[in-house]
Amino acid sequence: MDESSLNRLLERVAAGALAPHAAADELRGFEDLGFARVDHARALRQGATEVILGQGKTPHQVAAIALALAARAPTVLITRAAEDIYQAVLEALPGAVWHASCRAITLRREPPPAGKGIVLVISAGTSDIPVADEAALTVDMLGGPVETLYDCGVAGLHRLLAERERLRSARVVIVAAGMEGALPSVVGGLVDAPVIAVPTSVGYGASFGGLTALLGMLNSCASNVSVVNIDNGFGAGFVAATINRG
Amino acid sequence: MDESSLNRLLERVAAGALAPHAAADELRGFEDLGFARVDHARALRQGATEVILGQGKTPHQVAAIALALAARAPTVLITRAAEDIYQAVLEALPGAVWHASCRAITLRREPPPAGKGIVLVISAGTSDIPVADEAALTVDMLGGPVETLYDCGVAGLHRLLAERERLRSARVVIVAAGMEGALPSVVGGLVDAPVIAVPTSVGYGASFGGLTALLGMLNSCASNVSVVNIDNGFGAGFVAATINRG
Amino acid sequence: MDESSLNRLLERVAAGALAPHAAADELRGFEDLGFARVDHARALRQGATEVILGQGKTPHQVAAIALALAARAPTVLITRAAEDIYQAVLEALPGAVWHASCRAITLRREPPPAGKGIVLVISAGTSDIPVADEAALTVDMLGGPVETLYDCGVAGLHRLLAERERLRSARVVIVAAGMEGALPSVVGGLVDAPVIAVPTSVGYGASFGGLTALLGMLNSCASNVSVVNIDNGFGAGFVAATINRG
Amino acid sequence: MDESSLNRLLERVAAGALAPHAAADELRGFEDLGFARVDHARALRQGATEVILGQGKTPHQVAAIALALAARAPTVLITRAAEDIYQAVLEALPGAVWHASCRAITLRREPPPAGKGIVLVISAGTSDIPVADEAALTVDMLGGPVETLYDCGVAGLHRLLAERERLRSARVVIVAAGMEGALPSVVGGLVDAPVIAVPTSVGYGASFGGLTALLGMLNSCASNVSVVNIDNGFGAGFVAATINRG
Amino acid sequence: MDESSLNRLLERVAAGALAPHAAADELRGFEDLGFARVDHARALRQGATEVILGQGKTPHQVAAIALALAARAPTVLITRAAEDIYQAVLEALPGAVWHASCRAITLRREPPPAGKGIVLVISAGTSDIPVADEAALTVDMLGGPVETLYDCGVAGLHRLLAERERLRSARVVIVAAGMEGALPSVVGGLVDAPVIAVPTSVGYGASFGGLTALLGMLNSCASNVSVVNIDNGFGAGFVAATINRG
Amino acid sequence: MDESSLNRLLERVAAGALAPHAAADELRGFEDLGFARVDHARALRQGATEVILGQGKTPHQVAAIALALAARAPTVLITRAAEDIYQAVLEALPGAVWHASCRAITLRREPPPAGKGIVLVISAGTSDIPVADEAALTVDMLGGPVETLYDCGVAGLHRLLAERERLRSARVVIVAAGMEGALPSVVGGLVDAPVIAVPTSVGYGASFGGLTALLGMLNSCASNVSVVNIDNGFGAGFVAATINRG
Amino acid sequence: MDESSLNRLLERVAAGALAPHAAADELRGFEDLGFARVDHARALRQGATEVILGQGKTPHQVAAIALALAARAPTVLITRAAEDIYQAVLEALPGAVWHASCRAITLRREPPPAGKGIVLVISAGTSDIPVADEAALTVDMLGGPVETLYDCGVAGLHRLLAERERLRSARVVIVAAGMEGALPSVVGGLVDAPVIAVPTSVGYGASFGGLTALLGMLNSCASNVSVVNIDNGFGAGFVAATINRG
Amino acid sequence: MDESSLNRLLERVAAGALAPHAAADELRGFEDLGFARVDHARALRQGATEVILGQGKTPHQVAAIALALAARAPTVLITRAAEDIYQAVLEALPGAVWHASCRAITLRREPPPAGKGIVLVISAGTSDIPVADEAALTVDMLGGPVETLYDCGVAGLHRLLAERERLRSARVVIVAAGMEGALPSVVGGLVDAPVIAVPTSVGYGASFGGLTALLGMLNSCASNVSVVNIDNGFGAGFVAATINRG
Repeated sequence: MDESSLNRLLERVAAGALAPHAAADELRGFEDLGFARVDHARALRQGATEVILGQGKTPHQVAAIALALAARAPTVLITRAAEDIYQAVLEALPGAVWHASCRAITLRREPPPAGKGIVLVISAGTSDIPVADEAALTVDMLGGPVETLYDCGVAGLHRLLAERERLRSARVVIVAAGMEGALPSVVGGLVDAPVIAVPTSVGYGASFGGLTALLGMLNSCASNVSVVNIDNGFGAGFVAATINRG
Repeated sequence: MDESSLNRLLERVAAGALAPHAAADELRGFEDLGFARVDHARALRQGATEVILGQGKTPHQVAAIALALAARAPTVLITRAAEDIYQAVLEALPGAVWHASCRAITLRREPPPAGKGIVLVISAGTSDIPVADEAALTVDMLGGPVETLYDCGVAGLHRLLAERERLRSARVVIVAAGMEGALPSVVGGLVDAPVIAVPTSVGYGASFGGLTALLGMLNSCASNVSVVNIDNGFGAGFVAATINRG
Repeated sequence: MDESSLNRLLERVAAGALAPHAAADELRGFEDLGFARVDHARALRQGATEVILGQGKTPHQVAAIALALAARAPTVLITRAAEDIYQAVLEALPGAVWHASCRAITLRREPPPAGKGIVLVISAGTSDIPVADEAALTVDMLGGPVETLYDCGVAGLHRLLAERERLRSARVVIVAAGMEGALPSVVGGLVDAPVIAVPTSVGYGASFGGLTALLGMLNSCASNVSVVNIDNGFGAGFVAATINRG
Repeated sequence: MDESSLNRLLERVAAGALAPHAAADELRGFEDLGFARVDHARALRQGATEVILGQGKTPHQVAAIALALAARAPTVLITRAAEDIYQAVLEALPGAVWHASCRAITLRREPPPAGKGIVLVISAGTSDIPVADEAALTVDMLGGPVETLYDCGVAGLHRLLAERERLRSARVVIVAAGMEGALPSVVGGLVDAPVIAVPTSVGYGASFGGLTALLGMLNSCASNVSVVNIDNGFGAGFVAATINRG
Repeated sequence: MDESSLNRLLERVAAGALAPHAAADELRGFEDLGFARVDHARALRQGATEVILGQGKTPHQVAAIALALAARAPTVLITRAAEDIYQAVLEALPGAVWHASCRAITLRREPPPAGKGIVLVISAGTSDIPVADEAALTVDMLGGPVETLYDCGVAGLHRLLAERERLRSARVVIVAAGMEGALPSVVGGLVDAPVIAVPTSVGYGASFGGLTALLGMLNSCASNVSVVNIDNGFGAGFVAATINRG
Repeated sequence: MDESSLNRLLERVAAGALAPHAAADELRGFEDLGFARVDHARALRQGATEVILGQGKTPHQVAAIALALAARAPTVLITRAAEDIYQAVLEALPGAVWHASCRAITLRREPPPAGKGIVLVISAGTSDIPVADEAALTVDMLGGPVETLYDCGVAGLHRLLAERERLRSARVVIVAAGMEGALPSVVGGLVDAPVIAVPTSVGYGASFGGLTALLGMLNSCASNVSVVNIDNGFGAGFVAATINRG
Repeated sequence: MDESSLNRLLERVAAGALAPHAAADELRGFEDLGFARVDHARALRQGATEVILGQGKTPHQVAAIALALAARAPTVLITRAAEDIYQAVLEALPGAVWHASCRAITLRREPPPAGKGIVLVISAGTSDIPVADEAALTVDMLGGPVETLYDCGVAGLHRLLAERERLRSARVVIVAAGMEGALPSVVGGLVDAPVIAVPTSVGYGASFGGLTALLGMLNSCASNVSVVNIDNGFGAGFVAATINRG
Repeated sequence: MDESSLNRLLERVAAGALAPHAAADELRGFEDLGFARVDHARALRQGATEVILGQGKTPHQVAAIALALAARAPTVLITRAAEDIYQAVLEALPGAVWHASCRAITLRREPPPAGKGIVLVISAGTSDIPVADEAALTVDMLGGPVETLYDCGVAGLHRLLAERERLRSARVVIVAAGMEGALPSVVGGLVDAPVIAVPTSVGYGASFGGLTALLGMLNSCASNVSVVNIDNGFGAGFVAATINRG
């Protein structure tokens, strides 16, 4: 916390506009809701958008955390949210928007931070689109602009090779693929940019819920590939936006 | 794309029967629906039947892809479809047929390509029949004729040995088995033809959803056995039809 | 410990032939060597042959335990022994015999207990013989007679079917198999006797050191099959001898 | 098929009481229902009770197989049946009885075959009772008499040690246990009889659906233990009855 | 065994040229060496070349089996042999040849059976060549001709795309790949022939000894791919030769 | 059972206040309900609170066991209970209390045993609270007092470092964490007390239901960490209370 | 660092007895050797004995770290050391002692800190002794006194039950067991003290290098058991000593 | 290949300085050595340094590939090389340098490409240094400058927190950690830069050769973390250099 921020904070306490307890929270960098220690310091460090993982929390918890964040940050992203979470958040924050394909909620009161190039999000198949959409939305909120290229799996290479120009013009590439997860290796060989591979749980039988795709990507023979968790479109988008802003 | 196809294409554009955008798609060999890059080149290369994996796609997506394929290919096979997918496809393509035992949809407007011999599909148990049926249907669509022999598990060998003649007369054999997955090894020792083994998820406990059968088949002491994914009756049928047409 | 044994014990103490400490050990049913609590009660309960697992013990430890056991039991079996263990045991017990194929040591000063029927040990391949031999030796020491039938894998069924008579005349059957481990299911379907399946680590790649054979046997579609640990020929022989004596 | 059976068969054909097609089935030892090759030879070989695994079959299939078996065998056991299977079977075979705790169906028109001793079924906990009950029912149908001893887990040893007499009087012991699956080792050390261990899927977290109990039992330091599949109470009962009849 | 073979056999017995014991073996279709039941029937059924898996057998055992086979079959292939096995075989069969790259031994006294097309063996990397060579040698012995194309991994696609003509002219394609095992999917999309994928143990870390490549291949999005065990170049070659002869 | 207890027991029998059968149960240390052997000896040994694992038992079984325990112990804890179990218990024991966050039931008729220090329960995230609450409730019943500190994950270290004083003042620390399970290592480095780590199933994809957190904790580079099963808040609490009372 | 320590430090700098760089290290609480940041703060917090994990470090690195630690701490423990490490350490610290059974090195210049009770270390078998010895040595260095009880596996319960008095008199119990890892559950049921279970890699086949024992212990039905990593005798000893000192 | 390159190429052919076969190779972008298709196009696309994975290749193969690359690229990096590979390379390329700690070989005839910021490589422990060194060397060759910070594991946080300034000044951070792999999460929470996590195989028991660290990193609660294969310091360095150059 820089000095001017500190002064403003103390002035608000002096003016009765901020309770001493809340000021203490702020000085420590987080706000204690009992069930959550909302991390305001992170926002200052890692960009203006705050993120909440919806899964595993009650609608009430998510809404309360979102409200606490929205009191300070102009932009909030909630991932892996069920529809009842959206209802609770919408009540707390009327401007919240629902993104059905990837079950995310956004609150956006300022234009997002701009990156230095284009982030390209590629999906291997149609079924990988929800994960790819989560990645694209995250980039858009945290460091776009973002473009997408869907259903370019390796068994029909001409669908990918037809887009070589777009591939090479991207500053960062995200590739979402399930089943054997081979697409990042092929894309990695075609571009010079860093490739963030996100395995999806698309498949059946020996795809083991995305484990096969994950292992394939970790063993990629293309050296510019790094990997995030299965179905973690958000993580891929966050890493890509971080690189694109850097 | 050979020259006469190219000429016909350009004539359709000239005649206004084909939009320039669609012609571009065709020249690239695929058609971009946004959520899917429908691969028309594949049909030309790998037989007249187009295949859609229904699982993981919305009914709307499957119907739209089916429609795009049916505009060019006389025959369409949709696997792993739920009934709501069938409703959507039936609306788009009134001749579509539902195959309940293996949850597949077919559209067949021409007789299927004929292979050079008989493909024999064997199931180890009654519970493996849905997977075996998917394999048999696929062969029938892509390179039959196909025959079936169901419930011939290794614990009652006489049920299999009684059919030695039919085993030996097949040009390709598919064996679907769950639990310990031992049947392909026994069949492999009785025939000279290639055996495509398809493990099923039939079983419980340490069958681990078909993993045990899969591992067993990969370690078959019969040398003429190769393996496809768990419950992948379609894949087994596709490989068998490819061999039978070759 | 029955009364006459107890009397004999006390008389030996009175006569100075047994130290009080050793008598206490005997009354508790085990003898404490510091690094081992030698279980003499077990011998009384489970047959006259004492068994030592050689693996993981030093030659000195094995020899000391063997010596303690041989002081009371007429017969000792040491499994999974390296040759340096044999040297140490031979020095302590000059009558000890080395069984090279299964790396076992025996000391036999009385005829072994006889079972009620024949135990038949079958191996799927030539490479499974060491494990099958360990099983056969164990049966021979604990409850034979034993017969063997080696290299009858399922990919050449006629090699097994030629022996149906011997299969059906056995009171207990042991089947050792690696790779896909399918043989117990086939044998189980041909006999009415209990079948003890012992997976071996024979194989490579996806045999995963015997795991595939183990899983296959646990999922056997023959209901008369139970299973012991990978490469545990001793365990299979012990269970079979127990049944055959019962 | 012995000669008198053969003569009776042919006389029934001659008398028009048996269709030639059905006679052929019988001579081959099985009856082909299309979706199932009902194995009548097995009944002759492995005791008078026929068994159907209900899981994975439709109610119609189970009822048809049960009907075919009941035409020849006096006793039928159907395991892993849902209630809709019971309804279908009851309609086909009015004397069928539902066993709720282990979801099994029995048809019993003759007293079951008697074994030579008592089979004792032990469960580690209350939650393991459904599996233990399946084992006990199977023994009762195939080679009892059977006794039970439930909730004797190793963390309260006195509950087991209080029953040493019953343990030692059994000819075969079955032990069903989930979680760490330690009970078979302890029981195995207390008895001289063969112990059939059946791991259950009782537990959570790192019990991995019974895998932990299974692995524990396979590594039992008691040598008289062999193992069947997770939750396979039927298999444990079948093996125990086979031994008890032998 | 057809009639003329039978007659010749009996004449040799009558002439004292064949011992009655050996004739019995032949009638049963195998020869019992004690440690091996050499399967002569298999040769008659599955082509003139006999195969021995060297791994897990002693040099003496391999040499004895090879000698028995060579007494009847013109061609013998021994895979996974160590050099001491080669020494023993060479002593028994002076014409035996050592293939260092894949550690195989061949005895070839007749030209191999010819297939109907070309089998093309592709390796993803330089390190996969030993497995690819085993596959190529097997095809060459059992149903070639065979061609090879090495080091065409997916991260440098132009190395593969430069060979499209050769890819399309093959009747069967074998692809050996380690690490992420993506090459079969790409090749499968480029050809209409059946593709036999053989995962190799090339890689480190999360390649888990070839498991990752195996899983990737089983989940291939190309439908014409079937799979054999890790490092099983022989199996891939055997299946390919079987198809190519068919 | 000490002498005065024994005398009291016998007097109750003499007075007709205790049935001989029940006295026998008590002398053996457990009470046999048929489906459960209720372990009263354990209560005497391990503190006055009896615990029932609700999962896997029917409401009737849990209620009957609770009733049997409550006849002797002042305090009962039932974990992993569904609401229908609570209804059955409440009917049997009207004072029973429902703890919704961790689905536990308590009956508390005496103040709980006091430990020697404070047990601090820390959760990494908001979603880990149900497991942390189960741990805290267990400590409170068996050896508190207990304090909690929730949502202190390692990606925002200042949230934890702000509480160093509380960390250091605890006599035992419990840490519940899902996902990568890193928090116990960090906490372990900050305190001198024993740390009980409880992995939670919070996460998705490659968290594999808590396996990743479990493995991470077992490999903790902090030496004062030991681990319990996934989601086993009860076990962590029990161990912590045992230490705190000791 | 308390004030008097700080003053002494600064006086040494002023006197030229401590280089400013070294003083800075000390103020930060660690000393930077380039390849290691030696943590002196930990010693102050967690007892006077410093510990080095020998495995994975070069002899030179271990000796240098040991020298740095010995400059401040009276006692040093080095675990998992090879003999060449011992030679290097001995040269640097002549008083260092080699413990062959568990491959540890100790330097002890002060009596170790005393705990409040006895720590009892139990091993299931003879082969588990190296791990049990590592635990016992660690307790002895960090918070003993320690006693041992070896070879008390569950298949011969009388060997354990004979020692009930010693079991119950311990303040903390450590149990080392391989194979099925059942002993901690049995011991846990016999004592009221906390039990630290340490799985060992003793076993073969499906013991999977100790994984089976680890899983069994994590699923222990005794509630007072917590677990450390496979073969981590040091960790078990550290936790036990921490509890015993507390 | 741009036009001037093409012209120069053709001039060399015309001048006899380049064989037509070699020119063809160059036009296709790779050079075919038989056992390797050396990818010159990659160098043009992905920076001037060519990389060879030494593991799995013979010294002769590596030297030949290195020679081919060095004919065009100024800089060559060979990873995972044994010393015999270094001897062969040194003979072919006298300027080659051996890096013992990470077993790499470099040939550097031009200053490496410079990135836009500093890449900071952190290791959790001393044993992780070889992997960290491989990463640092790779960055240095492909896009440094690079700095290192070793032995900062999470159990002694002050060792890391003392370096916050250096952490925050890095443009990309690489974290190498074994055991529980927790360090990337902690570092990820302290910096705004992208963090590349590389799990190492350091550890024992349930570290499963680095699998635990890998899984932990994939589940990192810090969103700016992506992951490469176990022990893949090269891959981490390549990705970091790619980002730093971009």
